[in-house]
Parts: sequence; structure tokens; C-alpha cells
Amino acid sequence: MTETIELAQKLIQIDSVTPNDKGCQNIIADYLKPLGFDTEHLKFGEVDNIWARKGTEAPCFVFAGHTDVVPTGPESAWTHPPFSAHIDGDMMFGRGTADMKSSIACFMAATKRFVADYPDHKGSIAYLITSDEEGPALDGTVKVVETLEARNEKFKYCLVGEPSSSNKLADSIKNGRRGSLSGTLTIKGIQGHIAYPELADNPIHNMAPALEQLVQVQWDHGNEYFPPTSFQISNINGGTGATNVIPGDVVIQFNFRFSTEHTPESLQESVHAILDHHKLDYTLDWNLSGLPFITPADGELIRAVRTASDNVMGYKPILSTAGGTSDGRFIAPTGAQVIELGPLNATIHKIDEQVSVSDLNQLTEIYYHTLVELLAK
Amino acid sequence: MTETIELAQKLIQIDSVTPNDKGCQNIIADYLKPLGFDTEHLKFGEVDNIWARKGTEAPCFVFAGHTDVVPTGPESAWTHPPFSAHIDGDMMFGRGTADMKSSIACFMAATKRFVADYPDHKGSIAYLITSDEEGPALDGTVKVVETLEARNEKFKYCLVGEPSSSNKLADSIKNGRRGSLSGTLTIKGIQGHIAYPELADNPIHNMAPALEQLVQVQWDHGNEYFPPTSFQISNINGGTGATNVIPGDVVIQFNFRFSTEHTPESLQESVHAILDHHKLDYTLDWNLSGLPFITPADGELIRAVRTASDNVMGYKPILSTAGGTSDGRFIAPTGAQVIELGPLNATIHKIDEQVSVSDLNQLTEIYYHTLVELLAK
Repeated sequence: MTETIELAQKLIQIDSVTPNDKGCQNIIADYLKPLGFDTEHLKFGEVDNIWARKGTEAPCFVFAGHTDVVPTGPESAWTHPPFSAHIDGDMMFGRGTADMKSSIACFMAATKRFVADYPDHKGSIAYLITSDEEGPALDGTVKVVETLEARNEKFKYCLVGEPSSSNKLADSIKNGRRGSLSGTLTIKGIQGHIAYPELADNPIHNMAPALEQLVQVQWDHGNEYFPPTSFQISNINGGTGATNVIPGDVVIQFNFRFSTEHTPESLQESVHAILDHHKLDYTLDWNLSGLPFITPADGELIRAVRTASDNVMGYKPILSTAGGTSDGRFIAPTGAQVIELGPLNATIHKIDEQVSVSDLNQLTEIYYHTLVELLAK
Repeated sequence: MTETIELAQKLIQIDSVTPNDKGCQNIIADYLKPLGFDTEHLKFGEVDNIWARKGTEAPCFVFAGHTDVVPTGPESAWTHPPFSAHIDGDMMFGRGTADMKSSIACFMAATKRFVADYPDHKGSIAYLITSDEEGPALDGTVKVVETLEARNEKFKYCLVGEPSSSNKLADSIKNGRRGSLSGTLTIKGIQGHIAYPELADNPIHNMAPALEQLVQVQWDHGNEYFPPTSFQISNINGGTGATNVIPGDVVIQFNFRFSTEHTPESLQESVHAILDHHKLDYTLDWNLSGLPFITPADGELIRAVRTASDNVMGYKPILSTAGGTSDGRFIAPTGAQVIELGPLNATIHKIDEQVSVSDLNQLTEIYYHTLVELLAK
């Protein structure tokens, strides 16, 4: 049993369902202090965050992640209790095994070994850990980054331990994310009896031509880093339930995952133009949950991570900007190079979330070699 | 206080919420027997029905209606208790005042007077009263008609007392109804995460072009008797509620009110052709609740009713096939001439349903004169 696995079990056995940390960050702080880290607990609202840093020199390398986990779902459906961190063969089961307490354990074990091997390393090493990544993400990483910016504390590299791997460990790293823009569209009509449509105004009928146009638009063709912008409707609801009533409104919820070929403003303008063209009576509430960001492939961080992966695994990860949002969206605007590298994501948020024990030991190696590439001297 | 109003109050004060009759039909039977009617109680399932007939000769004239009423809604919202039949000025308040216990009271008072004035009238007079018009309508008029057909009992004229008047008493009679054909359409896709649309298949997007086409079709232009066929969507629902999930299906409920320019089969074919053209993966359940029927304007019944109205009101009603379905749809296929004439329909099914007392007295006159036109000798 390696230190990585012991640490992972210790963290996973705490039921820190979002937004609770339940002491996980104390375990991390207590581990880092003897290695020379200064640790700061930054509590915003109900959310625990920790910022820990060893050294004051540039360049500063940050490990970023979160101690909160999503709810377990019905515990009886799990093969092993979700907070047991039970190991069966090569697999460790539990909520947070893949997303992403194990990655934090790998950070810690890699840091300890690196500090032991390179006591006089250059630059600084830091940790930015929140307990509000799986929730609204309002009092977590975004607030810590604001605090650091306010006191002009800079970092150059940030490795987020989110589970980026698809089929085998380190086959893929995320070097950016699409933006995410959501809308709630309410199209209004006039309710009435279905036998007297001339006395009503059916909002479902009114919206049909606009809906058809919205789903047909080719928003852009993507670019070197991003796939094409996608528009998807998640929910559509209109009707009283009665089959003889024309409803008074219909509500559509939609989401854009958008490339750097678009801005939130340009998308909003396009949607309004379509709705206005069809002369709809509507209200539309927008919610921007993240701007697109990209860390170019030729930066030192990506080169270091790819070399480290190649050393350990014998292959280099591909770069990707697909998938959902992550806290990287709050860090990238600082100008830091940001990438995400972590274990396989096949079981995240599911019953029987699990991770390979041998993968975790190799992930520790990759993190260690990344530190060596960037900070050894 | 006329006998019409006394009878109406007696019936309205019984809370015969559909499918309950609660003794209303006994009141009717007890009133008709001394007038020379043979009365038959025909119970199907939980539903009380009555068939009463005076005489055996042709032509047989039938008064048709129902003793059941729709629920009151919150009683505290009513100005007067819904089963009080309270009279305030010229208005009588209560559930069933307009739809349609008052009409039955008018039938009864008109019949009594006619039988007294014309003891040797020609033909027969009959009553077909159900307590299942406002509910599923499976064990009501349709079953009574089947029973009569099975024993080869014929009738030539049928006056249904449904509230047909719009702005003033007898301004409009219904001489037919459009057909009603409903469909529940489920369009299938593949559920998935909104950030990975390439792994999902959004049924809302897939249906959009077909939906647009369905709402644009001009199904027909109507004809001499019918307005154009109308297609209306009552309900559309797709989505898990979560804003980051592409749903696995979307369900649309729709309804045709159709003219005699179409058959249920021709409408079904057209809808399937559109859905198939767009290569949708769908299921579609059809429900035919009524075929269109028409009683031509040149028949004896319409002439008699219009003359009777003109005698009493000084104007003749216009003919209409608009509005919802009624039990006329079950009677018309027998070949009888069927029309609907009753009080104003502005408050039916609403809080504070009400009817004008003076209108009811005039309606009794119209029914009386109709009997005179058709059966006096």
C-alpha cells in the first residue's frame, strides 16, 4: 500500500458531500506544513477553501482541485459502501475516487517526494483546494482567485486534477474548455379551449418556426482548439395537462457550449434576432456560467505534462477542449497556463464510482515528473 | 315563480357531480308518469340513464340531456353556494344552472303544457337523460342508443338541451359538431450530457422541422356547414428538469377538430406522412372521440325550432357547428335529425355558473312551440 493510496482512502472515507469539506482540507494542510508550506484557510460563506504555498519565488506551480463530492444516490445500489474506499482487486470504490479526491492524494505524495529529492527547487509550489466545485461554485475557486489577484499574488502554471482520461490513464488532457451560456425562454400566448382556437393564441404553434430555425443554425465551424459551437435544448414544457386546453405559454431551456469564435453577446444577439424575426411575444433570461479559455499547446506546462506522461506511460496525451465546465474557467483569466490531468472519468457521478489503484500510483509519478520538468534545478 | 323555475331549483339543489345522478332522474320520471309516459331506468356500470316515452306512433320527438354536472371548484369562491340554486334578481346561481339541469326543467314544463293543450297529439314524445355526459361518456347516451337500436326503436327528431346560446337566448343552435381526433406523439432520441451532444440524439431538435410543418398545414377550407379543420397542440413535454441533460424523448398531445372534408383515416395518414418524411423515431396513439355530424338546415326539426324561436323571441337562431363535442355525436348516427338548443353558455363549467330566470321561462315557450310545430294536430 503506497502513501498515495493511504491518503486517498483517508480522504474518501470522509462523506464531504458538496458543499461540505468535513475536515479534508485539514488533512491536506497537516500533511503540507511539515514539507514547508504556509497554509491559509479561506472561508467564504459556507465554503471551506485552502491556499497553501511553499516558497515565494516565481514561477509558482499550483495544484488545484476540490474536496467536495456529488451525492451518492441510493447507497444500497453500491457494490461497496460509497464512503468505504474499499479496494477490490485493483479497483478502489467510493464517491470521490475518480472525481477527485484521489488526484489530491497523488498531488500530495508527488509533492513530498519532489521536495525530498529537490530540496532547493526553483520557484514555488502551491495548492488551491475548494469544497464548492460540484455545487454553485460561487464561494470556491473564483473567490480564492479574486483574493490572490487582490494582493497581486501570481502563479504561472496550474494543474487541475479533474479526471481527464478517457480509456487509459493520461490518454487525454484538457487544455481549455468551451464557454457555457444558458437561456430560459418563455413564449407567451393566450390560453383557451381547444375547440375555440380563434379565441386563443397557441404559443407552441407560434414558437415552432423559430424553434426549427434555432436547431438548424450552424453557429460556427470551431477552430484549431475548439469543436463547433453547439446549441442544445434540455427542457421544453407547455400545457396544462388537460387535453382540451390550449396553454398560455411554453418554456424552453437551452444551452450553448461555445468556442472562441463567439462571444456571449454575439450568441445572444443571434437568438434574439431569430425570435424577433418570428414576432414572438417572449421573455428570455440568460445565464453565463463560463467563458471559453485555452492554454496553447506550445506553453511550458503542456510540454512538461506531456513529457512526464511519456516518461511514465510511454505515450503522450492528446489535447482536448471537449466536455463540461471545470474550475479551470476561473483560473485561466489570471493569465496562468491551465491544464487538467487526472484519472479515468468513466464512472464519475455514477453508482460504483471507482478508480484503478495502479493508475493512481502512476498518476503520482506523472505529477512528480511534471514538477521535475518545471521546478527542478 | 313558474313551474320551470321550481323544477330547475329542485334539480340543481341535488349535488349530482358526474357520474352521479343522485335521484334527479327519479324526479323526472315521477313528473312524466302522470303525463302518460312509460319510464325505463337503464343502468350501465355506475351510470344511471332514463328512457321515457309517451306514445308509440311515429314520428318520435326526443328531448335529450344529462343530470350530471362538473365539479364546483372551490365552493368558497362562489358568490352563492353552488347547490343552492339561489335567485338574485333575474339570475339563478348554481352548478348545472346553464349546463344543463335548467333545460331539463324547461323540457318538463313545456311537455306538461303541450300534453294538456294537445291531448291527442300525433307521434310520440320521449326523454333520453343520462348522468355520464361530463365524464367519460362510455355508459351513457351511447349505451341507451345502442339499446334502442337493438330493439329497433326509432326516433326522428332529437332536441339536445345543451347551452347553445352565445349572447342572447336562442341566438344560435348547433345543427352538428366537428369530429374530434386526438393523438399522443412520443418522439424518441438518446439521452445524454449536454456537453457531449455527439453522444446523444436530441428528440426536441429532431421533432422541430416536423412540428413546424404540422402547425403550418391548411388541412381543408371547411364547407357549407363546417369551419376549416383545426389542429391544436395542448401539451408538449420533454426534459429531465436538469439543465445539463439532453432528454431521451419528447411527448406531444394534439387534437383535430375536423370537418366532413376529412375522415379520421385521412388525417392520420397525413400526420404519419409528415413524421415519416422527417424520419422520426416515434410512437403515436390515436383516440377518436367523435365523428363529425350534421343535420341539414332544410329538415323539419330545424324549421320547427327556428319558427318556435321566432314566435317567442322575434328572431331566428343562426346555425353553427362550432364548439366542443356533445352527446349529439352518439345520436346522429341513428339517422335522426339532431339539434342543440339551450341557454347562454358564457358561465358553464365556471365559478358562479348562472342562468337568467326570464330566459328559462322563454326557453320553455320555445320548446313548447317546437312540440306544437312538429306534433300538434
